[in-house]
Amino acid sequence: MITVALPKGALLKDSIRLLQAIGLDFSAFLEVGNRQLQITDPTNTARALLVRNSDVSVYVEYGQAQLGVVGYDVLREKSANVAQLVDLGFGQCRMSVAVKASSPYRSSLELPLNGRVASKFVRCAHDYFQSLDLPVEIIPLYGSVELGPITGMSEAIVDLVATGNTLRENGLIEIDVLFQSTARLIAHPLSYRLDTDGLYNCVEQIRKQVSQPVAT
Amino acid sequence: MITVALPKGALLKDSIRLLQAIGLDFSAFLEVGNRQLQITDPTNTARALLVRNSDVSVYVEYGQAQLGVVGYDVLREKSANVAQLVDLGFGQCRMSVAVKASSPYRSSLELPLNGRVASKFVRCAHDYFQSLDLPVEIIPLYGSVELGPITGMSEAIVDLVATGNTLRENGLIEIDVLFQSTARLIAHPLSYRLDTDGLYNCVEQIRKQVSQPVAT
Repeated sequence: MITVALPKGALLKDSIRLLQAIGLDFSAFLEVGNRQLQITDPTNTARALLVRNSDVSVYVEYGQAQLGVVGYDVLREKSANVAQLVDLGFGQCRMSVAVKASSPYRSSLELPLNGRVASKFVRCAHDYFQSLDLPVEIIPLYGSVELGPITGMSEAIVDLVATGNTLRENGLIEIDVLFQSTARLIAHPLSYRLDTDGLYNCVEQIRKQVSQPVAT
Repeated sequence: MITVALPKGALLKDSIRLLQAIGLDFSAFLEVGNRQLQITDPTNTARALLVRNSDVSVYVEYGQAQLGVVGYDVLREKSANVAQLVDLGFGQCRMSVAVKASSPYRSSLELPLNGRVASKFVRCAHDYFQSLDLPVEIIPLYGSVELGPITGMSEAIVDLVATGNTLRENGLIEIDVLFQSTARLIAHPLSYRLDTDGLYNCVEQIRKQVSQPVAT
């Protein structure tokens, strides 16, 4: 039986809708007050695990799930050893550099040498500033990254931006985009190669639903 | 003006009650629907930042807050460069090793060589198993760590236990305790040494409220 790791939060509804379209019903996860973390679909053909967005790739990498749905931002940050198969199109957002609107900086290259950048995405931020050859100190934060520039702890942040409302509410503006992100279908590489439990067919059905090429 | 970093979540209420006892009122953070992340107390003598539990030590380490309240578990995990001043007594819990109740393991040393341990507290788990001279693979997870043993991904977990209800609900049992944890008052080391903005007096007032020695 195939196991699919599904992400809690913003990507869950669309992930479940997509799997329903290929005949797998995990909508019990969406019921108010749901406390289950693993369920089997009513036709008894697949199982789903409900995990944190940032844990999906761990379950797939270790083979505890053969398939998973996860944001490209998380894949980039964790550089997990998983097969990235289909760009699912939903969950659009971008990884951006933002600064205080009142600051003089209007591009990453204008940031001061050895300045500070707060981010939940430490690896993405590090790789980006290294590619610019701009030495900065990355400050790892887990929440409310926008407090970095507001309190003066950092000149900039690297964070996910969807609507831009959080930035605006906090007096910040985007000055550069590192990359665009969407939800991706990932698979355990060996299971996919060996076509365990009809995995290949399942992926093809999802690919047809999405009917668009893999983007990276 | 002194800035205090306060942790969202379980420790917030007791932290605010403690500061009220020394005349600083940040209860606005507790109002339903509060979206403010920084407020000044009504007497205009101190400011508070509302941040994630795991970010408190970052704000204090970088001097954006001179004081902070944070769980000892986070201090151990992050080994932040901050001065640990007072054991505040509240927020009691313990860092424990747990396994499936149906497993044969009844102590950490009975776990299989090169077994897997899932944890949010990667450093604590690593240090503990190293001190036992037991080689294990630590699997970093961000949420629902109990799914590790349930799905068979790991033999054990290292996680915080307060009441033990989550373990019981998931058919897990504690087999060892790494350490006990409570909330701690921390300070920016240089600010404390230089007694910036009357920091020393403020700490002494808190110490009197708690009236118990520093525990580590």
